[in-house]
Parts: sequence; C-alpha cells; structure tokens
Amino acid sequence: MTGQRTCLAIVLAAGEGTRMRSARPKVLHAIAGRSLLGHVLDAVREAGGTMTAVVVRPGAEAVAAEAKRILPDADIFVQAERRGTAHAVLAAKAAIARAPDDVLVIFGDTPLIRPQTLTRIREALADGAALVVLGFRAKDPTGYGRLVLEGGELVAIREEADASPAERAIGLCNGGLMAFAGPTALPILERIGNDNRKGEYYLTDAVAIARAMGCKAAVIETEEDDVRGINTNAQLAETGAVLQQRLRQAALDGGVTLVAPETVFLSSDTKFGRDVVVEPFVVFGPGVMVEDNAVIRSFSHLEGAHVGKAAMVGPYARLRPGARLQEQVHIGNFVEVKEAVIEAGAKANHLSYIGDATVGAGTNVGAGTITCNYDGVAKHRTEIGKNAFIGSNSALVAPVKIGDGAYVGSGSVIARQKRHACKMTRTTSMLGLILRSYVMAHFALVPRYTRHGRSCASRWWPFTCAES
Amino acid sequence: MTGQRTCLAIVLAAGEGTRMRSARPKVLHAIAGRSLLGHVLDAVREAGGTMTAVVVRPGAEAVAAEAKRILPDADIFVQAERRGTAHAVLAAKAAIARAPDDVLVIFGDTPLIRPQTLTRIREALADGAALVVLGFRAKDPTGYGRLVLEGGELVAIREEADASPAERAIGLCNGGLMAFAGPTALPILERIGNDNRKGEYYLTDAVAIARAMGCKAAVIETEEDDVRGINTNAQLAETGAVLQQRLRQAALDGGVTLVAPETVFLSSDTKFGRDVVVEPFVVFGPGVMVEDNAVIRSFSHLEGAHVGKAAMVGPYARLRPGARLQEQVHIGNFVEVKEAVIEAGAKANHLSYIGDATVGAGTNVGAGTITCNYDGVAKHRTEIGKNAFIGSNSALVAPVKIGDGAYVGSGSVIARQKRHACKMTRTTSMLGLILRSYVMAHFALVPRYTRHGRSCASRWWPFTCAES
Amino acid sequence: MTGQRTCLAIVLAAGEGTRMRSARPKVLHAIAGRSLLGHVLDAVREAGGTMTAVVVRPGAEAVAAEAKRILPDADIFVQAERRGTAHAVLAAKAAIARAPDDVLVIFGDTPLIRPQTLTRIREALADGAALVVLGFRAKDPTGYGRLVLEGGELVAIREEADASPAERAIGLCNGGLMAFAGPTALPILERIGNDNRKGEYYLTDAVAIARAMGCKAAVIETEEDDVRGINTNAQLAETGAVLQQRLRQAALDGGVTLVAPETVFLSSDTKFGRDVVVEPFVVFGPGVMVEDNAVIRSFSHLEGAHVGKAAMVGPYARLRPGARLQEQVHIGNFVEVKEAVIEAGAKANHLSYIGDATVGAGTNVGAGTITCNYDGVAKHRTEIGKNAFIGSNSALVAPVKIGDGAYVGSGSVIARQKRHACKMTRTTSMLGLILRSYVMAHFALVPRYTRHGRSCASRWWPFTCAES
Repeated sequence: MTGQRTCLAIVLAAGEGTRMRSARPKVLHAIAGRSLLGHVLDAVREAGGTMTAVVVRPGAEAVAAEAKRILPDADIFVQAERRGTAHAVLAAKAAIARAPDDVLVIFGDTPLIRPQTLTRIREALADGAALVVLGFRAKDPTGYGRLVLEGGELVAIREEADASPAERAIGLCNGGLMAFAGPTALPILERIGNDNRKGEYYLTDAVAIARAMGCKAAVIETEEDDVRGINTNAQLAETGAVLQQRLRQAALDGGVTLVAPETVFLSSDTKFGRDVVVEPFVVFGPGVMVEDNAVIRSFSHLEGAHVGKAAMVGPYARLRPGARLQEQVHIGNFVEVKEAVIEAGAKANHLSYIGDATVGAGTNVGAGTITCNYDGVAKHRTEIGKNAFIGSNSALVAPVKIGDGAYVGSGSVIARQKRHACKMTRTTSMLGLILRSYVMAHFALVPRYTRHGRSCASRWWPFTCAES
Repeated sequence: MTGQRTCLAIVLAAGEGTRMRSARPKVLHAIAGRSLLGHVLDAVREAGGTMTAVVVRPGAEAVAAEAKRILPDADIFVQAERRGTAHAVLAAKAAIARAPDDVLVIFGDTPLIRPQTLTRIREALADGAALVVLGFRAKDPTGYGRLVLEGGELVAIREEADASPAERAIGLCNGGLMAFAGPTALPILERIGNDNRKGEYYLTDAVAIARAMGCKAAVIETEEDDVRGINTNAQLAETGAVLQQRLRQAALDGGVTLVAPETVFLSSDTKFGRDVVVEPFVVFGPGVMVEDNAVIRSFSHLEGAHVGKAAMVGPYARLRPGARLQEQVHIGNFVEVKEAVIEAGAKANHLSYIGDATVGAGTNVGAGTITCNYDGVAKHRTEIGKNAFIGSNSALVAPVKIGDGAYVGSGSVIARQKRHACKMTRTTSMLGLILRSYVMAHFALVPRYTRHGRSCASRWWPFTCAES
Repeated sequence: MTGQRTCLAIVLAAGEGTRMRSARPKVLHAIAGRSLLGHVLDAVREAGGTMTAVVVRPGAEAVAAEAKRILPDADIFVQAERRGTAHAVLAAKAAIARAPDDVLVIFGDTPLIRPQTLTRIREALADGAALVVLGFRAKDPTGYGRLVLEGGELVAIREEADASPAERAIGLCNGGLMAFAGPTALPILERIGNDNRKGEYYLTDAVAIARAMGCKAAVIETEEDDVRGINTNAQLAETGAVLQQRLRQAALDGGVTLVAPETVFLSSDTKFGRDVVVEPFVVFGPGVMVEDNAVIRSFSHLEGAHVGKAAMVGPYARLRPGARLQEQVHIGNFVEVKEAVIEAGAKANHLSYIGDATVGAGTNVGAGTITCNYDGVAKHRTEIGKNAFIGSNSALVAPVKIGDGAYVGSGSVIARQKRHACKMTRTTSMLGLILRSYVMAHFALVPRYTRHGRSCASRWWPFTCAES
C-alpha cells in the first residue's frame, strides 16, 4: 500500500544532549551495539524510506559520518542556528522540495521506533491525511503535550502549560514523530511562526495550521516505548534495557534457550539458529551468528564472530571479529580467537590466543598456545593443518605453517625458517627439536613421527633441520 | 502418616513442547543444572514414592534414559497415540493394577513441585479422599480451569470456556496435579470418555465421575509457583528464575553471604558451609560443595568441585569436575582446575591450567603454569610434592612427578625421563637445568638446592642429570 | 550553622547478629566494599563529628580495630553486659561527660545513613531541641515503633505492642537514630529505668523523660532507606542493592555511560572522569579512579587501580591494587596487573601477568607474557623501557631490566645476569639469544637491532653477552 509511494525521512540529529554531560553528540551514544542514530536510520530503511535527510548541528562531522556509514545516500543538512524544531526541519527544505509522497520527521534520539510503526504512519498518509502525529498513552502524562481530538481527527497538540484542566485529563500524548503528505508539507511548515515566549519555530504548531488550511490531521497510536526519547545517561540505560528485553524475547520466541535472559546482552543484529543454548552472563557485540545446537557458556564475549553448528564456546571464551568457528569446534576457557578460521572439530580449550590463523579440522591446540602474530611492525598469519597436535605452552611465531598431522612438543617455539627455504611441516626450531625429542621419547610417539617420513639424526645433538 | 502407604507416581513426560521450537524433548530442558524431569522425579523420591511410572512418547529414548539415570527402578510406558491426559495416564495401567495405596499423576514439565506438597496430597488420600486435585490461587485466572467447591468438597473442574460468570469469578484454579486412592483409581480412570469436541480423554473429567461414584474429591491448595508449567522458552527462563530465588534465599538463610544474590546462579544440589562469601557474578554448576569460611570471588565458575575451608577462589577461577581444593588453597585469576587435588595451603594464582594432577600442600604454582596432561592420545597425571615452587610459564609434561621442596625455574619444560629410570624430584630437563642454574645464581638459592643433596657439576655445561 | 558546635557520635556496634548465622561480628559485614561500621563512621566524619565513641561487646577486638582503622581518634567503649540500648549508650558515659554540644546515637548496622541527614538532625539541636528522633514513613509500618506528635512536637515513641488503634494508624515510624543536646543528654539518659518485662534500659524511653523534664523533643523525617537496619543476610544484600542503586545513579548523573547499570558493582569511593563508558558485568572494588574517556569493557574487575585518560580496559582485565595505567594504555583479555605502572600508550592485550613492574611508554607486551616477580621467598621488580617489544610467551624473571626499544623474542626467558654485572638492556639469556636470532632472521629485524649498537657475533653459537 505504501510500496509505490516515495518517502523522505528527515531525521533531526542536531540535539546537544547537555544533560548527558558528555562531549559525544547525543545521537552517537549507543544501545545494543548501535548508535541511536543508527537505530533510527535502520528503522527508516526497513520502512521503505527512499530518501533520507539528516539534520545536524554545525561541525558535527562525526554525526554526518555515522549517517553516511549507515545510509551512504543520506543527505546531510546543517542547521546553522538553533531556532526550534520546525526550523530544524526546514534546514532540509531542499529535500522536501523534491516532492516526495511522504515526509516523515523523526527525532534522532528515539531509537526504539519500529519500522512497522513508520509503515502505519505512511498508510495514514496514503489514506488521505495531510499530517499524521504519532501518539501514545503515557503511564504518567505529566510534561507531555496532549493530543486533542474531535470526531476522530486531531485538532491540536496542546502543551501542558497551555492546557485546560479538561485537556490535561487527556491520556493521549504527543510522541514527537510527525509526518506530512508531500504536496502540503512545505506550505504547512513555512507558515509556522515564532510568535511565542522563546521566539522559536515549533513543529507542533503544524497541526493548527493544517486544520486552518482545511487539511486532515490524523493520529496513529503506538506504545510508549516506541517514542522514548533520551536526554540523560539514565534514560539511555533504560532505553537500552527495553531494547534488550525486546531482543531477548525475540530470541526466546525463536527457539533459543536463554538460561537467564536478563544476564544476556544482545546486539540488534545477533542471529541464532535452532536449539542454541546461552548460559548466564554472555555479551554479544555486533555481527554475531550462532548456528544450530551451539552452546555459548557463561562469561563469553562475542563480536563479529560466526559460531558453527554444535560448537561449544566458553566459559570465558572471547571471540573477536573474524573468528569463524566451524561445526563442533570447542573454544574453551580464557581463549581468545581473532581473524581465524577454526575448522570442524578442532579444539582450543585452555588459555590460548589464536589470531590471524587457520586451524585445521580435528586439530588440538594445547593449553597456553600463543600465535605470535605481531612482530612489532606488522601482523602475520599462522596456518595449522588438519589433525595436528600443538603441545601446551607453545609459541607459533607467524608467518608459520604447521602441516597436517604435525606434532608440536610442549613448550615449543616454532618459527618459519625463511632463510633456508625450509618448508616447515614439522617442529624445526632448535627448541622444538629438543622438546620433540623429549616428547617422543617419553610418549613413545616415534612410530607416529617416522610414519610421516621425518627423522631425527640424533636425539640430542646435533640438530637436523627437517627441510622439505 | 503416609510412611506405611505405597505410592505410585505416574509422571507424564510425553508432551511435545512444540512452542519451544526445539528438537529436544520438553522435559529434558534444564533449570538450575537439572532436567525438568529430574526435578519432578527428585520431588517424587523425596516424598516417598515407592513406584514410578514415566509415560513417554514413542521413540523418546533420551527421556527414558534420563528417567532411568535418576530412578533406575522407574518403569517406562509408551503412549502410542496422543489421545488426551487420561489416555496418557492409562498407558501406565499395568502399574496402577499393582494396587498401590496412592497414585499421583504429575506433569513432567512442572519442576517446581515440592516434596512437601506431594506429601500433603498423600495425607489427604490417607484421610479418605478418593481423588485429590492440587489447586492454586492464580494472580490472573484467565485460561485456567476453575475448581468448583461445595461444602468444602470438590464437585467439578470447570474449563474456562464452559464456565458460568459465577464460576469464572472463582479464584481457585486447577494446578494439573491429581491423585487417586489406589482401589478406585482404575475404576474412575476407565470411565473417562472422549465424547467432546476434540475426541480426547480428559483427566479433569475424573472429578465428576468420582462424585457420581459417591467418592470424596478434595482439594489441596498450594502457591502458584509450585504448579508452573512450561510451554515456551520464556516460561522455562521464568521458572528457572523462581527456582534460583528459592535457592538463593535458602543459601542466605543458611548463613551464606551473597553480595548480590541476583547475580549468583546455583544448582539444586549446591552445598555451603558457614560464613561462606560469594561475590557478584558466580555460576555454580551441579555437584559443588563449599566449606566454611571459603570466599568465591567474582566471575568464578564451579562444577563438580569441592572447595575446602577458608579457601579463596577467583576472581575468574574455573573449577571443573574433580577439582578438590583443601583448606586455605588459593586459586586465582584465569586458572582452570580439573580432576586435581590441591592440598592445604597450595596456591595457583594466575593464568594456569591444572588438570589430572596433585599439587602438594604449601606448593606455589607460578603464573602461566600448564600441566600438559594430554599427549594427543591419552591423559596423564602430574604429581607435584609439598612445598614445591613451580616457576612461572612452566610446562609440566605428564606423566611427571615433581618432588617435595623442588624448585622449577621459570619457563621450564619438565618431562619424565622414563628411559633412564630417573626419578625426577628436581628439574631435570635440559632447559630446566639451564634455567635452574640461572635462577639459582640470581636468587642465591644454592643453599636450598644443595640442602636437598643435589648438585650441578657445572653451572652451564655439560648437564648433569639429577638421578635418584 | 552546625560548624562551630562540637559533636559526639556514639556508634552502637555491640549487636550480635545471630540471625546472620555468622561468626563475623555483624557490623563487619560489608556492602559496596566497606564494612557496615565503616559506612556509618564515614557518614559521621562527613557530617562534622568531632568525637566518636564506638560501643562494642567484650572481646570484639576486630570491631575496635576496624573503628580505629577508619577513625584513629575514635574511643572504644565496652558494654560488659547486654542490658538494652540506653545501657549501651551509657557505656560511653565518659565521652558524654566531656560536654559536647551535640550527641548523636547511631546504630552501627544502618550503613545507608547519609551525612546530610545527620546534619539536619544537628541543625534541629542547634535550633533548641533537647532531643531529636529520626523518623520515616514506612511502606509497611508493622513492627515499628510509632512517633506520636502533638503540635509538631514529639511526645512519645510507642512500641507497636503498646499502641492504641489510633496510634497504630500513624505512618511515621522510629528510625532508631536519636540525638541529644549535650547539656541534657546525661540527665535524660540516666533517668531511663528498666521497669519492664525484659528488665532492659530502652533508649526510646528518653522521649517521655525529656518531655517530663520540660525539654523539647523534635522529629526529623527521612526516607526509609536511610534507616535500614540489617539483621539477616537477605537484608544485607537488599541494603547493598539500595546502595548500589545510589552509586550507579550518581555515576550516571555525573556523565558516566553505564551500558547496563544493574550489572555494574561500584564501591563507595569509586571515582569517574567524564565520558567514561562502562560495559556490562564490571566489578569495582575499593580505591578505583577512572579518568576521562576511558572505556572499561565487560567482565573486568578493578581494585585499588588508577585508569588514565582514554585507556581501554578489558574485556576480562583484572586490575589489582597498585595498577597505575597512564593515558591510552590498553589492558586486554585475561590480563592481570598488580603494583605496576603502565606508561602512556603501552599495551598488554592478551593472557599476561604484570606484577611489580614498570612498563615504559609505547611498549607492547605480547600475549602470554609473565613477569616472574616471586622467587619463592621475596617479590622483585621488572622494569621495561619505552617502545620495547616483548615477544609472546616470554617470562621475565625479576629482578630484571629491559631497555628502551628492546626486542624480546617470542618464548624468551629473560633473567638479569647479576654475576657478571651485566646491565641487561637486551635479551641476554641463552634462550633469549637463540630465540632472538630466530626472530631477527625471520622478521628482517637486524637493522633495527644493529641500530641500537648491539651485535651478535654468530647467529647460533657461541653466544655473545650484550653487556654494557
């Protein structure tokens, strides 16, 4: 119904947020891993917005950049002076002049607005309203403007200070969000004056003007949470909590077992397969996908990670961006994984750092293993083959390759011998050799070792480099 | 009073739980470290149940196995078709025919049912009731069947759809659990028909039938939480939260200091001594006992572990099954202990993995120590004596023994020298010797070393193996 | 107004606390990182108390010691027998006899009492009241003594058992805290008798006595939380929760972003700069200061630590007492810092223990690095220069110095060569040299190495000690 209509969303993001006592622009504060502005722009996009105008204050490059990051096509308009909400909207006059069918005016600090609410507003415009105001039934209406209806139509938004006792008794309040039919948007907005105590141009005056022009003004009602504005850190936290409840409920409804939902923090884009279990105290940053039957144990922290089917993560696992766990992988306690593919069935269960690496299927990474990916200048990759065994407390100095089925003794330091063009598919550092000798002698692993066609000329000395 | 009576508990565990959107049978979902079925069976056992019949759906081997795991004597009955609750109960007809004094019918998805509630129901049977229904006063009765009483006796369970306005005003609702006196159980159950819209056999019809047979039907009232059923993941989480509150309150009442009770997750079998302190954010899995005066610090995770008197655990300590901490042991941050006895006064305070090991009394395990218990094939044990000092970043390659009073230099890799039948009570790896030499030279530890009757022929070279 | 007046605070700390089922004296239980007694004494100090008398039970050395620790000038009085609250107050008769202007009587188990409340009470004394009782409007007055007023003046404290129906309807309750004008304090207190059922001397009788003496008794009203007393572990936890809410709200109001305030535990003395962000699940022990723009990530635990501007801490960082992070320092996951200065821009991002150390500006500490500060007997210091690179899995055996710009190869064990008076500004252990050779060869770092005027005579052997 609104599909064919063009829609301009004007997002007002010029608020100062002084009550947050923060140098950061208000709309760049975040909940659930996304900026307030990001939440609003996402809702606009999902509601089918075809043009977006973001109104910022002078010098707010960071806000403009965030808008462009999310919607590269967004137009940025600067409101040079702060002269009221209608004045802010008219900063985007050039966009309105392009004659969209629908014009939505949304505050950048109302991150819980849902796409379906925007769609309902657009439907009211499509049904013939020239102006639509989003209303809500406030638990405590004190301080809110009241929506005065007559015969189902909106006749005025009455600020509390100006309201009669009868009007104060109205429970339906102004949620802030307003929409205009394209053709009459500018005529209405430009008639708004500033003949009031503060000398500002108030968007709320649009209702009376529209009525005076013979246009129909309608109200769409939504729940209070949808229009929560944020002015303080406490409100930021409360709004974040409401969003977390929504995300947790959606996860539960989708079949995820959250053992203690109130202790799990999700991002707006967290995705779950079926029969996933999440234990208490888990944080999901942005960009996480968890597949079917995976278990995320307590005290785990995931960002930008993919967890494969039936994988077991944690407790105390940290998956950083680029962690790609294939099915049945186990990542255990005090283990950090970053930019690494861990192939099916591989395990790293204790006290390890696996960064910029590939770990082959079925490989066991021992406790205390470190991939030394950084040499002080650049990052390098570690590649470990399939079914390898990396002994505990080993340091793998990247760039390095460990071959399929390789056995690295405990406490080894493995570095690639570039100089000799030695292709390391085995422990070949001197230390590694010493240690491997020990390991082999003690664990009777010689058969396994020789099976791979390598030999060690002497158990202790001199060392033989296992070159290819 | 109920002690001499035999009691058959029929646990209905054939529910599908489709609303949980899970491949796992509903009654196998868990709260507080135990399956829903496990909670119910434990309550039955504690209430003195002498026979247990578990009714499962066809192919539900996992449910049957869980039932047998908890109550090996339990009889499993398969309900071939889903034809209503009374039909499910009659799947266990053979058990009822054994003529128990009391027959309890319990839903497998009501894990908060308490043994004392079952006992009260059994007492009502002993007092002469032929049928007992468990009722509760619902906060919101909408949707529940109402219990219609006359002169203190139950005359009917009226489903909401069939209820008159007066009946809807009744606050006492049907909790689902029903009990029968043995002699009249089958006669009543077998008269239940399926002449209704869905063509199912409803257990609730038993009340009217019993009345018609001239039998007395009674109501036992309990609190709503006792009869919470679980149909969704959200209800699973809410029920788990209620159980956690019960467990936390019991711990507080027993003298445990929970700094922030709402952040501590307990298992049904967690046991505490006196004057234990538990800081915020701690998870207790099944099988944990914490003795007097122990402190469990934040972010700790314990399963199957015993924490001795005045031990200090965490923050960030993970105790896995088989961790046995004796008194005054300290296990610190990022330390994992598994299948290990840590004797009195020993410490492992930083970044260590201690698995399949014994650590002697008074021994200090340095930061970054790893017991390399796994060689890729099997697990081996590490035994460390009393009052030893394990230098930081050491790898102890099991099987290995470190003697009483031994001093292992930092960064050592210690492996047992099987080949030379060398009984290692000292650092004897080449690396260890190098390092020990350093350590001794720098820390003036030679006296301590020689005191134990060992010597090092040369500080640097050649190495002397410290054989026994 | 109260500035010139002297003030004696009598803190009653002789309660047994049997309902806590704890061997620890009740007032030594803690909330928000401070004992109950400590909270009360801090409030007294902030309200300008000039003398403090703490009344303890016989043998309560620990209570006396805690009082002296906080207020070294405090006088300790022992109440030999338990004969009622007035009897307890008179244990401090010698202090009252020193003729202070104001005498406050405070229970040691009411930790939420605020200095401003004490000040308001003192103002009432300064205004001419001989006796002031602190009252509150109870949500549920059951069990509390009621404050009976006539013409704005207090005429009696009526215990519930003795109250008429009209008096029971009074919502204003006795909060316990009482204050006396110095000159009439002893005359009033000494007239309190024990002619009652239990034969005890009740402080509440003071009101009627004061009235009978023609003295004015006043009520100061406060909120219920201020006078919460603690008798059980559950009340201890609830009171702690109220205090946490106060501390969190103060942090939010001060400009801190607490992503999920309910998951952050603060101490009473936690201090924050501007634009600090604290993620979910963070514990602040006593003595933490976090400066502007720092970010404390999830699962971090801080005690006695200073976090500099724009520093990044966590997730899973543990800062212990003496951790001093300068600006833009990064301390990452599974890293413990204790008694260490980390200079500007230095990083230790993974799996490390840094204790008794200095890390120079711009230095990078690799994953798995351990400062081996303990040799089994004493602790020693590690000093790392500026812009150094500590390779992963290194063990730095203190006492040791690593020079500016030094490059330590992965897996090194570095120990100071005291014997040769060798000033180590480089990797000089044999192992370190081996490893450094590898590292240099593989990473083409020779230029960097030689740039610092060091050389290695042979790549492999013999080793050259880099002496100064």
